[in-house]
Amino acid sequence: MQVLVTGCAGFIGSNLVDRLLGLGLSVVGIDNLSTGQRPFLEQALRNPRFSLVEADLLDEATVRESFKGCDMVFHLAANADVRFGTEHPRRDLEQNTIVTYNVLEAMRVNGIRRIAFSSTGSVYGEAKVIPTPEDAPFPVQTSLYAASKVAGEGLISAYCEGFGMTAWIFRFVSILGERYTHGHVFDFYKQLKADGTQLRVLGNGKQRKSYLYIQDCLDAMLLAVEKSTEKVNIFNLGVDGWCEVNHSIGWICDSLGVKPELLYTGGERGWIGDNPFIYLGTSRIRALGWTPRTSIEDGVRRTVAFLRANPWVLESRA
Amino acid sequence: MQVLVTGCAGFIGSNLVDRLLGLGLSVVGIDNLSTGQRPFLEQALRNPRFSLVEADLLDEATVRESFKGCDMVFHLAANADVRFGTEHPRRDLEQNTIVTYNVLEAMRVNGIRRIAFSSTGSVYGEAKVIPTPEDAPFPVQTSLYAASKVAGEGLISAYCEGFGMTAWIFRFVSILGERYTHGHVFDFYKQLKADGTQLRVLGNGKQRKSYLYIQDCLDAMLLAVEKSTEKVNIFNLGVDGWCEVNHSIGWICDSLGVKPELLYTGGERGWIGDNPFIYLGTSRIRALGWTPRTSIEDGVRRTVAFLRANPWVLESRA
Repeated sequence: MQVLVTGCAGFIGSNLVDRLLGLGLSVVGIDNLSTGQRPFLEQALRNPRFSLVEADLLDEATVRESFKGCDMVFHLAANADVRFGTEHPRRDLEQNTIVTYNVLEAMRVNGIRRIAFSSTGSVYGEAKVIPTPEDAPFPVQTSLYAASKVAGEGLISAYCEGFGMTAWIFRFVSILGERYTHGHVFDFYKQLKADGTQLRVLGNGKQRKSYLYIQDCLDAMLLAVEKSTEKVNIFNLGVDGWCEVNHSIGWICDSLGVKPELLYTGGERGWIGDNPFIYLGTSRIRALGWTPRTSIEDGVRRTVAFLRANPWVLESRA
Repeated sequence: MQVLVTGCAGFIGSNLVDRLLGLGLSVVGIDNLSTGQRPFLEQALRNPRFSLVEADLLDEATVRESFKGCDMVFHLAANADVRFGTEHPRRDLEQNTIVTYNVLEAMRVNGIRRIAFSSTGSVYGEAKVIPTPEDAPFPVQTSLYAASKVAGEGLISAYCEGFGMTAWIFRFVSILGERYTHGHVFDFYKQLKADGTQLRVLGNGKQRKSYLYIQDCLDAMLLAVEKSTEKVNIFNLGVDGWCEVNHSIGWICDSLGVKPELLYTGGERGWIGDNPFIYLGTSRIRALGWTPRTSIEDGVRRTVAFLRANPWVLESRA
């Protein structure tokens, strides 16, 4: 079986590639290396069962060509820069919505019928039901990022209905772990490396966040693809529980041995469209036998350890 | 106040233009006349408060220019060809999703903050709750058309959150009445005009449909824009009740004085992605004081009367 992974040089993508190769599968990876990192593929590139296509998914012809002969697609490529959506509103439309359309068309013309997709817990907007289940009330979108993911989910579901495809859609909380390159923990770590005496915190630090460790995330995705057989299979992925941003700051400072002054920008939201609390109900994926094995605190500490061991990552995301 | 109407030469758009002009407002209409009909604007074009911009909404520069000086946008332009989505999957993406993005960007750069949008009851997919309320469980999309409308709703809501806009989103059942140019009643009428002895019916004829008369629809839209003041105001629009496709066939045949043999293609669905039953809960719009005044049967009969009085419409949609 040959599997295609879009965004293969990204945080989740590159970890998935390693897992798939470890399972004995052949993997074609596509990445334009705009935010993906070639060093994350160091191990994969030494494996004869892996091939890398360096291409932009907006380039339809290349995409169609590279999909040939694949049996399933993990579509992970995305603009994941949630926070600055309003500064470049076209980016989410192009990188997330239109690219997802291109992926589906490439699948259709190549007769590929199975797709797994990384969506986001942000699609629930300001959820009124917490923990939020997959069939929560029809949400109102609050960020361009989440809107583009809802658009992607809709396209995928419509292709399943119209063209006989099967989909696994995963709505993630934030993911942490090795090769993590953006988000709260990254931003805090970067600030503290530059100056351990003070830390600027967007919002009031009380935003509650539910993080999931990368390997637990991949366990869940692979299990769902193996075991769930509906036309469109939608799963929340997250841990039972949450931490406040202040907690993760505490663990990061402890790992680094610093005690900075905390400068809060104030307010419940870190930025426009930031959701003060994303906490997902995960009974659906747990019913398949999955349970996360790494706590939020351990996830944060492993992430800091990775960043300390790989100082080049900070440079690459300057 | 100057109002902009996209899709101004379409069924709903042209009726809205006449209503807005009747209220004393100035109206700029945009249409590429791909499916819109210039004769529908005959009355409007004689009014000095109306101006027509013949342009494609994919042409960003023209759109931005034509939005200048407007205070509110009614975004009605769309590919409304629900049935054949799988024959040209790019059309819904371009005409509905990307065009809605272009409209929002044109509003943003011109400082326009109010938008009304024609969505669809199809966004509920195969609803499990009937009548379906606006906050029904997060649906799975079953057609490219509905997926593109969900994408449009998401973009609009995110722009409201990110850029301080206000939106009125209307999820319609099928609309009937004067200037109606596509859908069941049109297709049946056209077949029967060509040959009154037989009628081919997609599906088993038992699909239940909830139709709303155009002027009732416009009453609801204008009332909602006037009275509801949330950031994002979402309303189902439909009647309390439904008819089977077989009923509407009966009324059409009666109006035309024909008794055709009915040839059913069979099955619960007329086409892939067709929803066997869309029936929307409308308590939210009714709470504002709205109630539809025209029955489904009268709506069908008025539609047939319009088509009989305007034979050119059949030719134009050959």
